[in-house]
Amino acid sequence: MDVGFIGLGRMGVGMVANLLKASHRVAVYNRTAGKDRTLVEQGATPCASVAAACRSDVVITMLADDAALETVVHGEQGLIAAMRPGTVHVCMATIGVALSERLATLHAEAGQRYVAAPVFGRPEAAAAALLFIVAAGDAEAIAACRPLFDAMGQKTFVVGDRPHMANLVKLSGNYLIASVIEALGEAMALVGKGGIDKHQYLELLTSTLFGAPVYKTYGGLIANEQFEPAGFAAPLGYKDMRLVLEASADLRVPMPLASLLRDRFLTLLAQGGEHLDWSAISALAAKDAGLKE
Amino acid sequence: MDVGFIGLGRMGVGMVANLLKASHRVAVYNRTAGKDRTLVEQGATPCASVAAACRSDVVITMLADDAALETVVHGEQGLIAAMRPGTVHVCMATIGVALSERLATLHAEAGQRYVAAPVFGRPEAAAAALLFIVAAGDAEAIAACRPLFDAMGQKTFVVGDRPHMANLVKLSGNYLIASVIEALGEAMALVGKGGIDKHQYLELLTSTLFGAPVYKTYGGLIANEQFEPAGFAAPLGYKDMRLVLEASADLRVPMPLASLLRDRFLTLLAQGGEHLDWSAISALAAKDAGLKE
Amino acid sequence: MDVGFIGLGRMGVGMVANLLKASHRVAVYNRTAGKDRTLVEQGATPCASVAAACRSDVVITMLADDAALETVVHGEQGLIAAMRPGTVHVCMATIGVALSERLATLHAEAGQRYVAAPVFGRPEAAAAALLFIVAAGDAEAIAACRPLFDAMGQKTFVVGDRPHMANLVKLSGNYLIASVIEALGEAMALVGKGGIDKHQYLELLTSTLFGAPVYKTYGGLIANEQFEPAGFAAPLGYKDMRLVLEASADLRVPMPLASLLRDRFLTLLAQGGEHLDWSAISALAAKDAGLKE
Amino acid sequence: MDVGFIGLGRMGVGMVANLLKASHRVAVYNRTAGKDRTLVEQGATPCASVAAACRSDVVITMLADDAALETVVHGEQGLIAAMRPGTVHVCMATIGVALSERLATLHAEAGQRYVAAPVFGRPEAAAAALLFIVAAGDAEAIAACRPLFDAMGQKTFVVGDRPHMANLVKLSGNYLIASVIEALGEAMALVGKGGIDKHQYLELLTSTLFGAPVYKTYGGLIANEQFEPAGFAAPLGYKDMRLVLEASADLRVPMPLASLLRDRFLTLLAQGGEHLDWSAISALAAKDAGLKE
Repeated sequence: MDVGFIGLGRMGVGMVANLLKASHRVAVYNRTAGKDRTLVEQGATPCASVAAACRSDVVITMLADDAALETVVHGEQGLIAAMRPGTVHVCMATIGVALSERLATLHAEAGQRYVAAPVFGRPEAAAAALLFIVAAGDAEAIAACRPLFDAMGQKTFVVGDRPHMANLVKLSGNYLIASVIEALGEAMALVGKGGIDKHQYLELLTSTLFGAPVYKTYGGLIANEQFEPAGFAAPLGYKDMRLVLEASADLRVPMPLASLLRDRFLTLLAQGGEHLDWSAISALAAKDAGLKE
Repeated sequence: MDVGFIGLGRMGVGMVANLLKASHRVAVYNRTAGKDRTLVEQGATPCASVAAACRSDVVITMLADDAALETVVHGEQGLIAAMRPGTVHVCMATIGVALSERLATLHAEAGQRYVAAPVFGRPEAAAAALLFIVAAGDAEAIAACRPLFDAMGQKTFVVGDRPHMANLVKLSGNYLIASVIEALGEAMALVGKGGIDKHQYLELLTSTLFGAPVYKTYGGLIANEQFEPAGFAAPLGYKDMRLVLEASADLRVPMPLASLLRDRFLTLLAQGGEHLDWSAISALAAKDAGLKE
Repeated sequence: MDVGFIGLGRMGVGMVANLLKASHRVAVYNRTAGKDRTLVEQGATPCASVAAACRSDVVITMLADDAALETVVHGEQGLIAAMRPGTVHVCMATIGVALSERLATLHAEAGQRYVAAPVFGRPEAAAAALLFIVAAGDAEAIAACRPLFDAMGQKTFVVGDRPHMANLVKLSGNYLIASVIEALGEAMALVGKGGIDKHQYLELLTSTLFGAPVYKTYGGLIANEQFEPAGFAAPLGYKDMRLVLEASADLRVPMPLASLLRDRFLTLLAQGGEHLDWSAISALAAKDAGLKE
Repeated sequence: MDVGFIGLGRMGVGMVANLLKASHRVAVYNRTAGKDRTLVEQGATPCASVAAACRSDVVITMLADDAALETVVHGEQGLIAAMRPGTVHVCMATIGVALSERLATLHAEAGQRYVAAPVFGRPEAAAAALLFIVAAGDAEAIAACRPLFDAMGQKTFVVGDRPHMANLVKLSGNYLIASVIEALGEAMALVGKGGIDKHQYLELLTSTLFGAPVYKTYGGLIANEQFEPAGFAAPLGYKDMRLVLEASADLRVPMPLASLLRDRFLTLLAQGGEHLDWSAISALAAKDAGLKE
């Protein structure tokens, strides 16, 4: 297939590489120049503008946040103006539910199609085509994108026919991960102050009831207090908690644990943790307990 | 080995049955008469008093809460008075850290030994000898009990040389389970109100990052809103959150998520949920969101 | 002075009446027609458009929320386009800190002046010229408005030279009021369930350490469980908690109590409390305690 | 009247002095010797034992906490054993609801009477006979103590016929004070980081809706960040939050704001704040916001 791909960050480069490996033709664009070099060597076509990347059947966006996406969507050179009728915009970034709803309307008014397909997985998973893809939108449009999803991920879940449903599921998933980080942070502060070895404790947890990747991955980071380099930086975690709370406000679902997480991230950022992995909020429980400065 | 076993509740009967199967001689006592009938048929020796069950090398207690344990420990017929010097009291119930510390002192003063060995696992796991046992105390005493642990559980973790460390680990584990229940409750209220199918959502979670028994077991109960009959009743969950908070107070470790859980359990009990499974706190998020009365 | 006044809600009508009493000439505009009738009888000049109300030296806006204000600010007939250079926009409504900062920039670019002057006081206080006015902005512009403030309020506090500082103070004040409502709600649920008479309890509080209007006013509403008619409706209280949290996010100040309040308002709205006074969040503690359905 | 007075701490000395001024005969006892010297000069009779102080018609206790009270109540020389039938024990300290209920039972069984009469007021108020006294218990017993209350306080509130009701009211009052401290701490962190002068802010609050002693007293301490010397030390504030939460647990009234306060106090103590005034929890919001180390 002919694919346009906008956003060549740490996730995007791996995803494009896998599309190329699966013999798709990919026109790539990134705001900052030079990010496309390696991909062009692998066969991607460089684009000088957003509009140039919009001449394909499917345009995938993978940008850092809502604001970045909005800059490529609107305007004379933006997706809405540049995409041909009937073509599909697949937004794979973690954006807000409200923006996703607005995009659905805008694309429909322009005779275009829109699919939300955010992913679970860190950059290594993107590079290894091991992403989990959560898709929602028009069934036919999703079917059309299926070969692309298969090239980038290990499994695709279709969760609804309105695109924003995928964003809601994705955001709630990040909320669940953050809740594991907080819970482990408090638990390890407790048992650690009580003299228990944290690594042995984690081993016990993950070999019994808590034997899931989320406990192994984050439990290890927390036990080691290893928050640099950031696999997923604190400001992004904070952004997602804000998006979760915005969705909870719009749907009128009080979420006290999400509120607690929001305040934890805000504390981390206020105290200079911008550069740390989002799992660093776990250290705040230890700090409150007087275990570190 | 000769074993005394006090406390024949839903957990205790399965544990004794497995001790008998492994050819240990078990003298059993329960406050309420008649609970020992089936076990006696299987070979257990019935005892008319606590003291009678204390004539063995090892006395295991498996009682509902701190208060119940204290009634069999003290007094003329209690464990402290009745156990012979050098014999071992193994407390396998989920009791408080502070009580466990007091028991260690009392037994030491009486020339007896004390091991804390609380378990993870519901009654079915107890019946199937699939418990996870968390032990702490004197290494030699634990070694002496090892054949018994092997008969009752699938794995034993030794977490420290002071008995109360095992209680701390066990309580923190129950806290982690409760935090999963709360997190899932809020997440399912959110996505459910957003139109997502809860079972499909759970399938997505458990086949990706959250593929652990705790998510499968409790996720299923929450998605089905099936809180009766109670596998582990709400008052017991509440009791454990209180014990966690007591330990957090004594160790001076603030735990805001544990405080949230405590208030959730209190709400559940205040609103008539005494008979429900502890996972019923998950329904409070849905209730707050106006999803049910 | 010649004054334009936009927004004739329950607060606005009282404020305009007091300006007229003090012999100011007031040109009034309201989106919904007919609200100006009584005021016109008292001497106000009706305007057919926002622009018509912008021909004065000072234009006061008193609209329900950020969105309503934005609709009169922008566009060909809006304040920015219609106000003459050097004239002053005084926003007396409770708007967000971020919007206030944007308005400051927009008015400055248009050669106009901008003062934020939100008020404390319910409609009765507005009618009685007993408002407390919190003003911030250019000192000269505030001085120019002083006769107007004196006509509408009992006291004006100048809290800074950047307009948004007044909004921050006003929002924090509403947060403090809401925190009193929550604290009293929990306390009255506790003592009420313990058999104490709530009115006597309130009498005790307000005749000792808590003898302030906020405890008397809200304490009475809470003890009487009298939440209708709404003096200040729940959706407005919720809006303000959101604006407080937005300010706290922008300034990076974690506010766990504000988060708790936000979730309380969200619960109230999710459960059908849109029409109630914002003090109705106090009843949620009683509900959680099983005291009412 | 003949009065026994046990507990000559900072509160007790002022209270006894006022009883003496009102011509009552006071037999005093304190565990630590020497505290009674000044009072003896003023006319008090020193006692060598608790029992010696129990020979009066009324025995007042004013001890630091539940544990201290229990040591003088029980035992051969304790109140229960030493008080004559029909005499009254008036506990004026802030003790737990559950202990107060137990004392009521014990005294009744011993044919004695028991009144709970905790006070609001710091040591200066005790010295100036300006305490507010909250009394509960048998009406006749309270009437008998009335002359004593009049000598020590400016006003007495009778809140119920069961003694523990007074303790519940007193504890809920301390909870309300702590909630003011927390709310002001968060608000001042917010407006302070936003560039507002904190003293001017406090002046605005206390001259408008928040003109009560509790805002003036604690607002001043918070704005000045003056937490030493402690008028009411952090460990005592923490103790009271625990007693509030125990009462909330026994009555099944979830109190999320009280839980937040409990965690704040725990954080303060874990970080070395034992010697500070309880209002120092207000500084934690500033710390979370990165305003101080």
